[in-house]
Amino acid sequence: MQTIALSDYNIYVGPIETGWKLFLEQKKYHQILVIADENTEKHCLPLLANAMEGQPFSVINIPAGEQYKDIGTCQQIWQQMLDLGVDRQALVINLGGGVIGDMGGFCASTYKRGVDFVQVPTTLLSQVDASIGGKLGIDFGMVKNSVGVFCNPQAVFVDPAFLATLSARELRSGFAEIIKHALIQDIAQWEKIKNIHQLDDVDWPALIVPSLLIKKQVVEADPFERGLRKALNFGHTIGHAVEGFALETDQPLLHGEAIAIGMICEAWLSHQQGYLSAADLAEISRFFIHTYGHYTLQEENFADYLRLMGNDKKNEGKKINFSLIGAPGQVHINCHAQADEIAESLRYYQQLKA
Amino acid sequence: MQTIALSDYNIYVGPIETGWKLFLEQKKYHQILVIADENTEKHCLPLLANAMEGQPFSVINIPAGEQYKDIGTCQQIWQQMLDLGVDRQALVINLGGGVIGDMGGFCASTYKRGVDFVQVPTTLLSQVDASIGGKLGIDFGMVKNSVGVFCNPQAVFVDPAFLATLSARELRSGFAEIIKHALIQDIAQWEKIKNIHQLDDVDWPALIVPSLLIKKQVVEADPFERGLRKALNFGHTIGHAVEGFALETDQPLLHGEAIAIGMICEAWLSHQQGYLSAADLAEISRFFIHTYGHYTLQEENFADYLRLMGNDKKNEGKKINFSLIGAPGQVHINCHAQADEIAESLRYYQQLKA
Repeated sequence: MQTIALSDYNIYVGPIETGWKLFLEQKKYHQILVIADENTEKHCLPLLANAMEGQPFSVINIPAGEQYKDIGTCQQIWQQMLDLGVDRQALVINLGGGVIGDMGGFCASTYKRGVDFVQVPTTLLSQVDASIGGKLGIDFGMVKNSVGVFCNPQAVFVDPAFLATLSARELRSGFAEIIKHALIQDIAQWEKIKNIHQLDDVDWPALIVPSLLIKKQVVEADPFERGLRKALNFGHTIGHAVEGFALETDQPLLHGEAIAIGMICEAWLSHQQGYLSAADLAEISRFFIHTYGHYTLQEENFADYLRLMGNDKKNEGKKINFSLIGAPGQVHINCHAQADEIAESLRYYQQLKA
Repeated sequence: MQTIALSDYNIYVGPIETGWKLFLEQKKYHQILVIADENTEKHCLPLLANAMEGQPFSVINIPAGEQYKDIGTCQQIWQQMLDLGVDRQALVINLGGGVIGDMGGFCASTYKRGVDFVQVPTTLLSQVDASIGGKLGIDFGMVKNSVGVFCNPQAVFVDPAFLATLSARELRSGFAEIIKHALIQDIAQWEKIKNIHQLDDVDWPALIVPSLLIKKQVVEADPFERGLRKALNFGHTIGHAVEGFALETDQPLLHGEAIAIGMICEAWLSHQQGYLSAADLAEISRFFIHTYGHYTLQEENFADYLRLMGNDKKNEGKKINFSLIGAPGQVHINCHAQADEIAESLRYYQQLKA
């Protein structure tokens, strides 16, 4: 068990039963709710229930998938909380990936103006990313995370045992945020990562803690995303647009898959704007294509991608805002690019297919 | 112009044009939105626009009334903000009574995880109550304010000029919170208030500042309502139930009218539990009935009132929680009463009709 202490809560990395006991030494709750979807209720709840050692709890079950991360599902959650007579002294446990963590945390933070919640991330992506930083929310009006709040959980429990429930594709998606953390903040970590050629035999737990420590450092320096924290948006301006667009097609992308595309395009922008060398760009592009393969971005959809970027909440005053990288381990926030240049970056990605 | 400084924002009491200039000396916004309903757009916006001296702004118009303080209206507001391309550097001005302040503030605090907002309360009730304390939210699942957040505005502008737009009934409603502040915290203020027999010639501005100072004191001691702040709930456990029930009938009550009823019932509970003398109870009851008249509470609806209290967010672990008063100027939080005793308090109110 490793405990990462943030300013107002702990992340317990290791077996959840150990973390749960440490947590309950400090807190008491007379009612516990677990928010789960059909997958996590089936595959992850038994492990959690076992850790809770017979403590009673109610389950709020919601449909699985990003397409349900919306105000309609929030209304179902709030209504069930009212029906269960939940008051401000209860605890909500969000058992699942980023969707459940973001949406369950948003519902808990806004139910009766806030009840305590903890995050139990069950995907690699949420273990290294969504579980830390206090960003909660839902998709609204076709825009990702456009409604939400900043609010910290009481604790986060990262148990690598949950990774056994994931497909190879989901593990690979989570890997994208691990790569991002290294590229923006930790060149030594990138040197290790770029030698990973085969995901089958990766020791994930060994990658999780360094990745969490990078994110902790960035988030604590800027909890409300006024400056430095924007570093974490590397790959996300274009990645979110690609993800949002794909969500409406019959070939949706996982978050990490879209962000991997976004990181290639934004690495190209980083090179174009003089921050990143041609050699680094080539190495980063090669690594991502090797790991994620190539996805077709159609020229005829570029206008849609650009429109989706126009409504990205990282923009200030209509300019399209990017966080770009220099040499791996360095980052430049509040960069901007014109529509032409962005389209060119998508074309750069596209020609990598050859 | 009087400035009341809270820990992280100012309340400017006086002509809004003066307050607005003081505020803009510290802040800059490249986009301004005004949330208004059909009434405040017609009657109050001209005064605000005049104070803004030609600064451009967009108006988000919402329907007037507590029945629209719901998630549906929030969705309209968020969607209009997206359509207007609002980003995190914008300012939202909530121009209206408690409904607009609570809901507009909630939408601003949750849009893209938070944009700045200021409150311009236009009713007496919101000037002395809703505009201060950071409690934001909407009604959900038939329960008042069951979804919301705590978030402070950047400033509050209390301009008594707006009171000229109000009916006598609305002024009387706001008066209830002024009375409450005196009863729970300031006996000298209560001694003055109890000699008001005629609302026509009340100098409202002279009552607003002392009332705001009482609320400031309570809220600053306990911003998240963990203890002392519950004092402000005097009259509200029963009052909210009466208000919620009346909302569904063809004789809805204004908030202050319902709270006046709640304060009589809860003064009776205060006496019953040994905190308040019979003489004080009689004097308080007489004053409220003289000022507000008598409203019929039907015995056949008592079960509904009790049910509505059961879902009040001030409860902890299913007990019904009250804030009761001792001698005026004293308050006792975390008191409880059984259903029988609560019903008896409603009967006490009912017999005051005679």
